[in-house]
Amino acid sequence: MAPKLTLHDDRLFPADPASRDVARRIHAVTRGLPIISPHGHVPPRWLARNEHFGNPTRMLLTPDHYINRVLHANGVDLSDLGVGRGDEMTEADNRRAFRLLCEHWSDLNGTAMRYWLTDQLVGIFGVDVRPSAETSDAIYDVIAARLDEPDFRPRQLMDAFRIRFIATTDDPCDDLGPHAELAADGGFSEAHRVVPTFRPDRYLEPARPDWNELVDALGAAAGADVGTLDGYTRAMAARRQYFKDHGAVSSDHSHADLVTLVLPHDEAARLYDRARRGRASADEALALRRHLFTDQARLACEDGLVMTVHPAVARNHDADAFEHYGADVGADIPVGLEATRALQPLLNAYGNDPDFNFVIFTLDEDVYSREIAPLAAWYRSVYIGVPWWFIDAPESIMRFKREVTEMAGFSRVCGMIDDTRAFCSIPARHDMSRRLDAAHLADLVVTHRLDEDEAVEQAGALVVGNPMRIFKLDR
Amino acid sequence: MAPKLTLHDDRLFPADPASRDVARRIHAVTRGLPIISPHGHVPPRWLARNEHFGNPTRMLLTPDHYINRVLHANGVDLSDLGVGRGDEMTEADNRRAFRLLCEHWSDLNGTAMRYWLTDQLVGIFGVDVRPSAETSDAIYDVIAARLDEPDFRPRQLMDAFRIRFIATTDDPCDDLGPHAELAADGGFSEAHRVVPTFRPDRYLEPARPDWNELVDALGAAAGADVGTLDGYTRAMAARRQYFKDHGAVSSDHSHADLVTLVLPHDEAARLYDRARRGRASADEALALRRHLFTDQARLACEDGLVMTVHPAVARNHDADAFEHYGADVGADIPVGLEATRALQPLLNAYGNDPDFNFVIFTLDEDVYSREIAPLAAWYRSVYIGVPWWFIDAPESIMRFKREVTEMAGFSRVCGMIDDTRAFCSIPARHDMSRRLDAAHLADLVVTHRLDEDEAVEQAGALVVGNPMRIFKLDR
Amino acid sequence: MAPKLTLHDDRLFPADPASRDVARRIHAVTRGLPIISPHGHVPPRWLARNEHFGNPTRMLLTPDHYINRVLHANGVDLSDLGVGRGDEMTEADNRRAFRLLCEHWSDLNGTAMRYWLTDQLVGIFGVDVRPSAETSDAIYDVIAARLDEPDFRPRQLMDAFRIRFIATTDDPCDDLGPHAELAADGGFSEAHRVVPTFRPDRYLEPARPDWNELVDALGAAAGADVGTLDGYTRAMAARRQYFKDHGAVSSDHSHADLVTLVLPHDEAARLYDRARRGRASADEALALRRHLFTDQARLACEDGLVMTVHPAVARNHDADAFEHYGADVGADIPVGLEATRALQPLLNAYGNDPDFNFVIFTLDEDVYSREIAPLAAWYRSVYIGVPWWFIDAPESIMRFKREVTEMAGFSRVCGMIDDTRAFCSIPARHDMSRRLDAAHLADLVVTHRLDEDEAVEQAGALVVGNPMRIFKLDR
Repeated sequence: MAPKLTLHDDRLFPADPASRDVARRIHAVTRGLPIISPHGHVPPRWLARNEHFGNPTRMLLTPDHYINRVLHANGVDLSDLGVGRGDEMTEADNRRAFRLLCEHWSDLNGTAMRYWLTDQLVGIFGVDVRPSAETSDAIYDVIAARLDEPDFRPRQLMDAFRIRFIATTDDPCDDLGPHAELAADGGFSEAHRVVPTFRPDRYLEPARPDWNELVDALGAAAGADVGTLDGYTRAMAARRQYFKDHGAVSSDHSHADLVTLVLPHDEAARLYDRARRGRASADEALALRRHLFTDQARLACEDGLVMTVHPAVARNHDADAFEHYGADVGADIPVGLEATRALQPLLNAYGNDPDFNFVIFTLDEDVYSREIAPLAAWYRSVYIGVPWWFIDAPESIMRFKREVTEMAGFSRVCGMIDDTRAFCSIPARHDMSRRLDAAHLADLVVTHRLDEDEAVEQAGALVVGNPMRIFKLDR
Repeated sequence: MAPKLTLHDDRLFPADPASRDVARRIHAVTRGLPIISPHGHVPPRWLARNEHFGNPTRMLLTPDHYINRVLHANGVDLSDLGVGRGDEMTEADNRRAFRLLCEHWSDLNGTAMRYWLTDQLVGIFGVDVRPSAETSDAIYDVIAARLDEPDFRPRQLMDAFRIRFIATTDDPCDDLGPHAELAADGGFSEAHRVVPTFRPDRYLEPARPDWNELVDALGAAAGADVGTLDGYTRAMAARRQYFKDHGAVSSDHSHADLVTLVLPHDEAARLYDRARRGRASADEALALRRHLFTDQARLACEDGLVMTVHPAVARNHDADAFEHYGADVGADIPVGLEATRALQPLLNAYGNDPDFNFVIFTLDEDVYSREIAPLAAWYRSVYIGVPWWFIDAPESIMRFKREVTEMAGFSRVCGMIDDTRAFCSIPARHDMSRRLDAAHLADLVVTHRLDEDEAVEQAGALVVGNPMRIFKLDR
Repeated sequence: MAPKLTLHDDRLFPADPASRDVARRIHAVTRGLPIISPHGHVPPRWLARNEHFGNPTRMLLTPDHYINRVLHANGVDLSDLGVGRGDEMTEADNRRAFRLLCEHWSDLNGTAMRYWLTDQLVGIFGVDVRPSAETSDAIYDVIAARLDEPDFRPRQLMDAFRIRFIATTDDPCDDLGPHAELAADGGFSEAHRVVPTFRPDRYLEPARPDWNELVDALGAAAGADVGTLDGYTRAMAARRQYFKDHGAVSSDHSHADLVTLVLPHDEAARLYDRARRGRASADEALALRRHLFTDQARLACEDGLVMTVHPAVARNHDADAFEHYGADVGADIPVGLEATRALQPLLNAYGNDPDFNFVIFTLDEDVYSREIAPLAAWYRSVYIGVPWWFIDAPESIMRFKREVTEMAGFSRVCGMIDDTRAFCSIPARHDMSRRLDAAHLADLVVTHRLDEDEAVEQAGALVVGNPMRIFKLDR
């Protein structure tokens, strides 16, 4: 008989019995609260069309670069998981892909991926046997049957998951059609907000070979002449406003570093001209990118969009994989981050502006206690982004909480951000976060650093109050 | 009825009952030991004049940049807390400032600032209600009444707090009048040593616009001709001796990096001449600063003053705040530290000198296990400075203990340094340190890495033996 | 009466009783498994000649730079410990050295060195009193008597310690005589494999003053003309093959950084020529070293030797100590490591090659979660080296496990590497690792992230399965 797969109600709570009791009581208060997801990568089309998820592999496996990554390291080819193959995957292919996951189940021992998968398999699909080569087909069948149920469509799940707010990530030239459709559906949009996020990275990188075409497209989308820097800036402001008009609350940014720079207008305009004429040197293109990035903060002070940054990762580290499968397949590797010096120009210009909220994420844990928490404990605009990507797992999250809280307090932390494209993992991720909040707060209670009533209130604030306030959702 | 504010006797002890029992027994031995405070920023004038502390805001809030910082981040203006306003604060202003603190009490949840404040409010002032807008005035009254009691003057408190040794931080040109007064008061000085610390940073920075005037002042204070490097060095040695004659046991240093350099004498003298004539390039000024800093270690080998370094922080990161309020208001942000390569010249020259003790602090936690503990586990002069400033809080301190101890042992750790100007927080900080020592040692005992009798002895050494030995207080 | 020295059977297990029970059950399964030691520094001569260990000081103290280091920091001269004095140490000298260790016993409180020593003193020698000046001679006598017993020779101990596989570290020009002798002894070699490791660092460093002679020697050993780069490469390949023929399974590498570089053949050949003629600039020598290092990965794809890297340490930081005592006496200090950008050229060329296994160690803990685990969670060749040297101690190891596991899983971790020359400490180190595995896995079990049967299986894999697979011991 196959071993059971179970979901213990005390998972992630402290081992110490007294601490566990406190954690249970705190989690009992937050577990039923709605989900607010201010940044992620769920395709808005899914929700607009309310599409069937297809099949277990297509829903759980193929699009999840966290899992693909580890399976790749353990010898599985991405194409065998369906990556880059779209609709050509047959039923047999999908079952084979799913079996690869099940066969490698023990390679996921101790990982966050296994934790989230278990939560979904047991909690959403009612699977009760441990994945393995033997149980793979049966599990596949259970999930496939569930996917066919009428309440297993994106909008019904959004309701069942209690997702009250979710932000997608979108290109500045996107017409945001799906968002408009969803907003127009009063029955749905009254209880659920699905909003876009302005993600202009590519348009700020003059060193990209396709930058000129991108800027042309931006001008066309905005109906603006981008022949000069001023025209470019007007186009950017117009598209930000377009996003804001479609519900956006934030812009998101990811460059190789966090260096900011405020160039004199004429110098920036000169570099822009050179870049548009393909004559900018590498140094000039870099300086212009840093200036344009910093200028997004100025625009944010004007239009009020929250600015989030996800910096310092070497994208597409594996050239072969990039050539075969494209971006976002799991081969991005973090690099060190410097924030203190890098952000001084931006923060000296806008750091205490009452209309500016600036959320800093990192993949370099060192900067939590050395730079990010100290910055957030002084500048009014700066908020501490929660652990992201490689470090969005239980131990990392607990390290984060212990590092930043005693320095900056809870009020400077942005609240849970799932940043995921794996729709069904959203409840698992948010519940994980609430369990870890409970564990952390329980420790403060049993070591007499916080009273239990304060801990309970604080737990609720981390789930609802902080994201509402920091992402301006109550305005 | 307002919630209670309490101070639990088991605070900061491990949650596990067996570990907690051991921690209690260890702390029972150290809790009554005297306080030795080898580095801090209490104004010596307070003690010399034995002044009334004024009022609750002036004592607890206005001068504490830890609290100001977090309140600023949460939207409070520093001027509303009295920063930069001195005696112009009226009773109403002070009450309003104090209410701001109480209203923001939950913004301090989980922070070290809240821990220290609670310890003071309950332990020293007998406050028993949780701070809030409603309770603010009542708490203010309780504290104000206590401040008027005759035993609530600095010298009486120093006695009550069992502070047997405290070092202030002073400018090399200071005449150390208050220290002389205190030393002359035999009744007081027999039981309490209040000594100055030589802090020459500004005089070692040829890149400062006011460096020439500073050096002139140094020459005047020393009665030495500072026209040449040799004269400057004589002046520096003379002022160090003057401090030593007034009881100083150490010099303290804080520059933007830790790079050391021993220039050939003639090259250093040439750079000094250029700097004095205002002709040193930025690189030359930097090289000269590094040489002069390194030369303090040579002087330390001669006069025996312990050398402590607090490096790598971007001072006055917020230009606006610096302009409005000046330095030390909470807007300093740490930067990364490199010590291994940086210190090699200094340590190769003086690192094993029997008269040289060199205590290295950091705000970059990475270097504890990577560089500082390894250096202290080889060089006889090097001691590991305890966590400082942003990281002088319970979780950070426990990380520190776990990182450095198993590599370098307890004997290479300098013992608790409070580094504070908040006089009444000194007992809270030292008791926090002793509780965390107890927690750490209890863990070693219950995991059978140390016997309990050894742990008890070790705890006492950390409180008294190590600072006495490392700061040469027994000589 | 002197305090007892004991070895508690629950040492290093979690304090929480439920977690401790799980840890005990896991450890009960792994504690009797054989030791596999794929990298270390035991002199093969010891085993080949099956020599008497001499005396307690010579066996436990003089060659152990971990202990020497801490004693040096605490004021002991290395020569008083026998360092650099070889056979000139008299019985009285040895007893005096051993007394220095015992007198400084409390300076080892809380360190890994104390943990390992206690394990050896009690577990191997039956010592039952705590070391001190008073007990030193008696302890010395107990150990000395044990050393004279017939079962206390290297081969008998290897058997008693259940060491089934051990790799030494050897110069590429070494004739591997002792290894051949051991292999020829069928009675011994059937149950115990003692294999060499190819350590070519010096031959890859054109900046060394002795590089030309070293390359000449390499050519002579290989019987190849090293007048050109191609000849040099042939010589290198031949010596690797020679090592492989003598049982080697890996090459080991340690340079000041991890930067890799694949130069065009003609450019590399040109730099080689210049270096051989003594005309390479510092930059050229550095580029050539990086190219030659990267080329070892290419050779590894061909001959299948596993490649391990131990980068980023400032060797012989203390110039005086180096002059008096030479290398490896304890004065090496870690520096920061960058791996993501540095390894991209190597990994883009060979990172997913099925014949290439690449184990990355670090002394900079920051890169575990930021770079090494992410790399190992994508590239098939990359494995995470366990904590090494300054960080091979319980707290560091637990941090490591918590940082890398949830990101990359257990399958990407290389298993315990003791890297020691202290032969008798090998069982203590491996048992420590197994206890910490048990502690870590117990935590996953009690927080319901892993079932206990999975944890037990995983524990066994970490001890036997992972090293067998990753170091290709089953081929």
